Amino acid sequence: MLSVTIHASTPYEVTIDRGLFHRLASQLKDYQKRRVVLVSDRKVYSIYGRELTEQLEKAGLQTMSYVAEPGESAKSFQILEDLLESMVAARIQRSDLVLAFGGGVIGDLAGLAAGLYQRGIDYIQIPTTLLAAVDSSVGGKTAINSQSGKNLIGIFKQPKAVFCDPNLFSTLEPEDFRSGLAEVIKYGVLFDQQLFERLSRGVNPEDADLEDIVAKCVGLKAKVVAEDEFDRGVRALLNLGHTIGHGIEKLSCFEIRHGHAVAIGMAMIARACVVQGLASPDTSLRIEEALEQNHLPINTEYSAIDLAEAVRGDKKADGDSIQAILIRGIGQCEIKSLPLGEFYQWIERGK
Amino acid sequence: MLSVTIHASTPYEVTIDRGLFHRLASQLKDYQKRRVVLVSDRKVYSIYGRELTEQLEKAGLQTMSYVAEPGESAKSFQILEDLLESMVAARIQRSDLVLAFGGGVIGDLAGLAAGLYQRGIDYIQIPTTLLAAVDSSVGGKTAINSQSGKNLIGIFKQPKAVFCDPNLFSTLEPEDFRSGLAEVIKYGVLFDQQLFERLSRGVNPEDADLEDIVAKCVGLKAKVVAEDEFDRGVRALLNLGHTIGHGIEKLSCFEIRHGHAVAIGMAMIARACVVQGLASPDTSLRIEEALEQNHLPINTEYSAIDLAEAVRGDKKADGDSIQAILIRGIGQCEIKSLPLGEFYQWIERGK
Repeated sequence: MLSVTIHASTPYEVTIDRGLFHRLASQLKDYQKRRVVLVSDRKVYSIYGRELTEQLEKAGLQTMSYVAEPGESAKSFQILEDLLESMVAARIQRSDLVLAFGGGVIGDLAGLAAGLYQRGIDYIQIPTTLLAAVDSSVGGKTAINSQSGKNLIGIFKQPKAVFCDPNLFSTLEPEDFRSGLAEVIKYGVLFDQQLFERLSRGVNPEDADLEDIVAKCVGLKAKVVAEDEFDRGVRALLNLGHTIGHGIEKLSCFEIRHGHAVAIGMAMIARACVVQGLASPDTSLRIEEALEQNHLPINTEYSAIDLAEAVRGDKKADGDSIQAILIRGIGQCEIKSLPLGEFYQWIERGK
Repeated sequence: MLSVTIHASTPYEVTIDRGLFHRLASQLKDYQKRRVVLVSDRKVYSIYGRELTEQLEKAGLQTMSYVAEPGESAKSFQILEDLLESMVAARIQRSDLVLAFGGGVIGDLAGLAAGLYQRGIDYIQIPTTLLAAVDSSVGGKTAINSQSGKNLIGIFKQPKAVFCDPNLFSTLEPEDFRSGLAEVIKYGVLFDQQLFERLSRGVNPEDADLEDIVAKCVGLKAKVVAEDEFDRGVRALLNLGHTIGHGIEKLSCFEIRHGHAVAIGMAMIARACVVQGLASPDTSLRIEEALEQNHLPINTEYSAIDLAEAVRGDKKADGDSIQAILIRGIGQCEIKSLPLGEFYQWIERGK
């Protein structure tokens, strides 16, 4: 069992342990006799829903389940409203608990609902995907999408705890596991040569060191969150590959997975940094190899002009400039504000 | 000019000054060259919208106006979504500003939108009603209504500043001014004999000491907010008369104004406290007289059983009990958790 403390305004523990799922209810003793709103998606719920509900009920927690359709469509106003109205109808109270049981979409939706319900009730994250485990379930960002931009509507709301069982990842489609690996590789590129080397050899769900890899990523994220919980400074680093990535997701109507889009974004930025003389050609080659070793894409067919337009509405755009995350080498990245016009050239050079 | 500092997690000033409205733009120098989302209702906007917009544009602030229909209906999911999507469409950015220009409804809606947009942008309150000036514009509570309960969905989001010009209250309907007086009287009953005595003589919009009365109430609220920003303890006192009041509002489909409903709630609780031997008969008489002197109601025709049912879904209900605010005397109130069944008896006794 590995454990990482997140030093946010309300500190909490992330526990990473293979097999933890079967012991979840015993972790929720504080909420005995309280109501639990179990938020999940149909795919996850159909595999694990029954066992989890039985566990909770046995431990004395009354459970109300809210099961959304899988996919990004659950991060909409309509579903958020429906979830909140279901909680009102069930007379959920301030001392009750929301359990986010799923990937990043479920975590973002459930966290926002918990933050909004009666101006905030507790919630706990149980990430069922690698992507959620290393990224969205830690750090308190919650959101839904607006009609024309991802994650534009949300709040900062830290969970009370995160319980991560890497065994759950083995039921993922291989492509979904790989999507998570893109974020894992991002941590390596940003902060950690040694982690990057390990990832360059490829990672599989059954690898004995998967717990360590997850804990390493969570630890790296924890440092950034402790320094900049509300994303006004250094936390922007975590957006490496994300500005272009969000553009790709949007252009594909979310057919291209988040991690795959981020992988392409990272590869493009790496190539552009080489053209600009910021990084050595070797840096971008190593990043491309690590991504390909994990079966992730490094190119897109969308044109630079379409990408630039898709990027304009991004949260990271401010007036006529955009916050770009640039790569000087593995473990050496920096934040730079670029005029939108110039960023367009970077996109072109990264193609 | 009077000024009160609110010591919340982000401290801010409430400025109270007759005539301040005509100098508003000069108070917003920090936001020069930024965009301003001016949120208002049709009634307020038709009187003051043009002057305010001209002031802002002249001072170099680009203005986008969002004008809702007057009344509680603006505190809905639908309007919140529409406002947020309008902000996205206008490419409002993190460093821009939301201005809430209206009564409590507009403040609650605009504050929530500012809190949710890109996980939080600045907002400033300009209350145009007495009710908003002494209550909702201070303390950071924002909310919309769910289909079956008031203020059940929202967050804590402190404004950057509150600018209050009591001259704006003179355009209120007399009944709306009185509705605000109910909250003013509440502060007297809760904390301040001297204030209560003054209010018992009746208050009018043109009274020379209206600025002092507003500042006094804001100062009393400021103390409570500083002690309990997130409403887990003593802040519950501010709900005096509100549990029954919310029930009355709901039963009347919001035809009965908030303050009028709170006035009835306060009078009922006062009478019940006399029956229960907690307060002297003189206490409830004095409260009734102060309310009537300000043309506020002290009775309702809704039955105790209907009120009890309407109260059940309230935020202040927790499991089978409810947090009641009881009156021992003027300036002497207390929070008490009562079983729902017992609270029903209190309602009966207050009729």
